[in-house]
Amino acid sequence: MSSNSANFYAVIPAGGIGSRLWPLSRAAAPKFLHDLTGSGQTLLQDTWDRLLPIAGEKIMVVTGDIHAEAVRDQLPHLQNSNLVLEPSPRDSTAAIALAAAILNKRQPGVIIGSFAADHVVLDQKKFEEAVAEAIEVAQGDRIVTIGIKPTEPSVAFGYIRKGERISTSACTVLEFIEKPDIQTARKYVESEEYFWNAGMFIAKAELILEILKATQPTLYKGVIEIAESWDSDSRKNVMDRIWPTLTKIAIDYSVAEPAAQQGKVAVVPAQFEWHDVGDFAAISELQAQGQRGQLSVLGSARVLTDSSSGIIVSDTGRLVALIGLEDVIVVDTADALLVTSKQHAQKVKSLVESLRQSGHSELL
Amino acid sequence: MSSNSANFYAVIPAGGIGSRLWPLSRAAAPKFLHDLTGSGQTLLQDTWDRLLPIAGEKIMVVTGDIHAEAVRDQLPHLQNSNLVLEPSPRDSTAAIALAAAILNKRQPGVIIGSFAADHVVLDQKKFEEAVAEAIEVAQGDRIVTIGIKPTEPSVAFGYIRKGERISTSACTVLEFIEKPDIQTARKYVESEEYFWNAGMFIAKAELILEILKATQPTLYKGVIEIAESWDSDSRKNVMDRIWPTLTKIAIDYSVAEPAAQQGKVAVVPAQFEWHDVGDFAAISELQAQGQRGQLSVLGSARVLTDSSSGIIVSDTGRLVALIGLEDVIVVDTADALLVTSKQHAQKVKSLVESLRQSGHSELL
Repeated sequence: MSSNSANFYAVIPAGGIGSRLWPLSRAAAPKFLHDLTGSGQTLLQDTWDRLLPIAGEKIMVVTGDIHAEAVRDQLPHLQNSNLVLEPSPRDSTAAIALAAAILNKRQPGVIIGSFAADHVVLDQKKFEEAVAEAIEVAQGDRIVTIGIKPTEPSVAFGYIRKGERISTSACTVLEFIEKPDIQTARKYVESEEYFWNAGMFIAKAELILEILKATQPTLYKGVIEIAESWDSDSRKNVMDRIWPTLTKIAIDYSVAEPAAQQGKVAVVPAQFEWHDVGDFAAISELQAQGQRGQLSVLGSARVLTDSSSGIIVSDTGRLVALIGLEDVIVVDTADALLVTSKQHAQKVKSLVESLRQSGHSELL
Repeated sequence: MSSNSANFYAVIPAGGIGSRLWPLSRAAAPKFLHDLTGSGQTLLQDTWDRLLPIAGEKIMVVTGDIHAEAVRDQLPHLQNSNLVLEPSPRDSTAAIALAAAILNKRQPGVIIGSFAADHVVLDQKKFEEAVAEAIEVAQGDRIVTIGIKPTEPSVAFGYIRKGERISTSACTVLEFIEKPDIQTARKYVESEEYFWNAGMFIAKAELILEILKATQPTLYKGVIEIAESWDSDSRKNVMDRIWPTLTKIAIDYSVAEPAAQQGKVAVVPAQFEWHDVGDFAAISELQAQGQRGQLSVLGSARVLTDSSSGIIVSDTGRLVALIGLEDVIVVDTADALLVTSKQHAQKVKSLVESLRQSGHSELL
């Protein structure tokens, strides 16, 4: 553990369903509760293990209260005082700011790092180095994000535009840009001035709260009031009263962008391989590790095939037999089966939308 | 009922698994026990209904003893005395010859007609007309087959070569030819001298037995001995002793071909549409009735798709979601799932073979 770590607390906001990963990922069992890498652990467990060498067990998880049991099962070393349960989803600002406020009350001056529960990082050592540098930079009253070097002109991610260098590898951030169109994304990648925004933020908790106070004073006030009562008997009453009133807004808009405009954000470039595994095509490519014509299997399926390629995801234990299919996606669950191809993986989201509209909410 | 029908008995040999229709069709639930047309009835029930106007309830079913319960359930009007149960499969000669021998003992001079349990006939009236003419021709001591006019140079069927005309539409049969290669099949179709052999045979029971006596005397003797005891207390003893010893041979080789060589076979051309529904591609085409880009659904699946085409067969009631797939075949059963394309439908048979070899007999 580096010398910076004593003052560091990791926060894992574990929200979002991942509807592009339906029917595996559901409201009741979202993406982060699944093993999507074949590691034998879920994405949440991988995230915990990734943060453990940096934060020790000083890791707070913020998740929906319907996931409490699953999260406790998957993270047996998570302290109960570090599990923040949301009665309903109120977007990332409420989740992260509440964690910041609770932790800053418990340990004034704490630096927190927020890391999504459902991403994949392939080089642990390089990840630790990046976070260590980010913590270092965060001491100087900046919000520090870890930027991912784009490997392609993706339209699935937001971008971070870097400014001048401020340390060995960190730069200031000029602006955050929402998901661009493909032409713009190509220009960004060619310019080498942009990173993908992977939603990793490291900062003093009080800096986050200070910026929020200016941009969203009511939301700030609500979060502070909940945090004041958190480690007391009145937690439930205050939470039940205030939480449903909090503004739903992503932390990118409430904190990161305004801070960037004030020159208060820095970016540390990631030297590690990072994956969002946002759809089954991405999982398939991650599994195949760049090899073409591979058939990957995640889960308990027994598989029989000739020369089919793509990915099979199953939690039913049934035999799955494939003949002559290229880049196929088969997702086999107890009550729903999805068959498509890698080419159409992004369309799963709109299929889920039509399920919702046609009243099949029991399958969502 | 025509005047010929009084002396007529229909026989349905209900055997064969139909392994190209795995995982729907299994040893324990073969093809004929399934609804493969979406008629709301199984192929066996459709066959029964097709024969009813011709034979009344004078219909005998020969099937494996493991299917006794399913057949009784599906055919509530089948008389128990007309259900012949095989302790083990001994090919079509044993099955049909035993039926012929039992029926000829009960009703000497009976004309029997043998019709597969798992074929599809689309024009009932034309079917009845063809069988009526076949019965008429069969009075003149010929084995009469109903020939299907080829619609394409199929290599999936045997062929019948016709000779000279002997009645309004019947001709003599010069020879039966096993499944040809594609070049030969093309010549056959162009020549207009050939029919597909759909395995429909109409003849006096005693003529069938007489030919069998000459070609397979031991098999003949065994069948006669079983038939003698059939309607007595010793049936089980005799069956258990003799049945397992009977030669396994298709009736095409033991009776039809030798009879053709003796000029004793006639063919009545079918004017009806006939389908073997031998694989899922055939079922899909039958369902789509020649329309391209259709998605057919057989069974209890709830289906959600954009513009996929092909066929979904399901007995699980699960939701099946397809995105962007052309000519896909999805067969969804409780313990096994098949995904392939129409182009590869014939390969299901070799997949089943590899299942057998890899010891997954519980799935066969």
